[in-house]
Amino acid sequence: MHKLTHFRLCPHSRSIRILLTELGIGFSFTEERPWEYRQELLAMNPAGELPVLQLQGGTVLCGSYAISEYLAEDQPVAARDRYPLPIFPGSRTDRAEARRLVDWFHGKLNREVTREILEERVYRAYRQSADGAPDAAILRAIRANVRYHMSYIAYLADQRSWLAGDEMSFADIAAAAHLSCLDYLGEVPWDDYEPARIWYMRMKSRPAFRPLLADRISGVAAPRHYADLDF
Amino acid sequence: MHKLTHFRLCPHSRSIRILLTELGIGFSFTEERPWEYRQELLAMNPAGELPVLQLQGGTVLCGSYAISEYLAEDQPVAARDRYPLPIFPGSRTDRAEARRLVDWFHGKLNREVTREILEERVYRAYRQSADGAPDAAILRAIRANVRYHMSYIAYLADQRSWLAGDEMSFADIAAAAHLSCLDYLGEVPWDDYEPARIWYMRMKSRPAFRPLLADRISGVAAPRHYADLDF
Repeated sequence: MHKLTHFRLCPHSRSIRILLTELGIGFSFTEERPWEYRQELLAMNPAGELPVLQLQGGTVLCGSYAISEYLAEDQPVAARDRYPLPIFPGSRTDRAEARRLVDWFHGKLNREVTREILEERVYRAYRQSADGAPDAAILRAIRANVRYHMSYIAYLADQRSWLAGDEMSFADIAAAAHLSCLDYLGEVPWDDYEPARIWYMRMKSRPAFRPLLADRISGVAAPRHYADLDF
Repeated sequence: MHKLTHFRLCPHSRSIRILLTELGIGFSFTEERPWEYRQELLAMNPAGELPVLQLQGGTVLCGSYAISEYLAEDQPVAARDRYPLPIFPGSRTDRAEARRLVDWFHGKLNREVTREILEERVYRAYRQSADGAPDAAILRAIRANVRYHMSYIAYLADQRSWLAGDEMSFADIAAAAHLSCLDYLGEVPWDDYEPARIWYMRMKSRPAFRPLLADRISGVAAPRHYADLDF
């Protein structure tokens, strides 16, 4: 069986968990705390980043980019209707649009929001470093960034059936993976971004999403609405 | 003709300039200063990031990920020998390895080195902000990161013909694009990483690299060896 090395609140890991489940690909789990840079993780992925997917047979795939494209290569354009979920559906231009948005969520949103807030509110507490308390000025800046990204997601959700176009794609999965981490931390101002909320409800209702809604990490309680499908 | 919007010292832009030239695809240029977030750039790419490739016909491709994969889709596995440069050559696993390294260079190396040093030494000076001088502590931290990344590139170059394996791939282009920016700023300690230096000499000698070696930006002089093929 394939083995996924992940961390419960890592958005990149979550996107691959959802993707594998959507595709009906079975896998087992190992958890790593990415801030510990353990030798076992570095031996598999010298970048020390998550997720890592060890395929049955031994091949090791590192990072959501390599993993998602590896899986997408198994979906030749002519035969995409046969797959439970086309990872990058539509025309070549449609696929470029989905990839632009994957880059937005896994790159820009991660850099400006998710990575920073995980560092401030989760990793730092686990490390129990001397300066354990989150930095209020940094949190304020991140929360302003959240609003910018929510506006953009709401705009896309309002204009299109799915974030990248007419069909669900890996762009929706990547966005939902990040929002689910932020939502676990109570950091998403849903009320002001109705189209984004409705789109996220649809993502959250998918069976592939359910395992994420059951995740809990010690020391950080999820808000009551985190696992509600109608929130 | 296709039109590339780029900035001369942007590593992502440079990787696409090299790639297009290697593939024999003609294009014209427009330059943007990414730190200005001009409306014209945001209208094409709401992320405000470079490069942006406007195809003849009007399709707009944003970011090195979407552009490189769009171009790679034009190279069906069965017919790759027909192309001047297979972007992701070899088996499916080989391609995952090349993508892991593209992610390393365009993601990790960018975050830990290139983006930070451009901010400190180039963008900040252009913006003429009140705190115009580079921060010495930040520069020290970045220069330690450069050594870590140079070790890894030297290790790969020592073990393999090209960074990702037996054939040149977009991973070599991405790595060389970052090193060329750092080298312009005199930030690469070549002497301590001989295999990396020899690999970079091979990249630098390619005709597709020549236009980058002629680039100059006002206010920052390139070191004498920057354009030397034998340095």
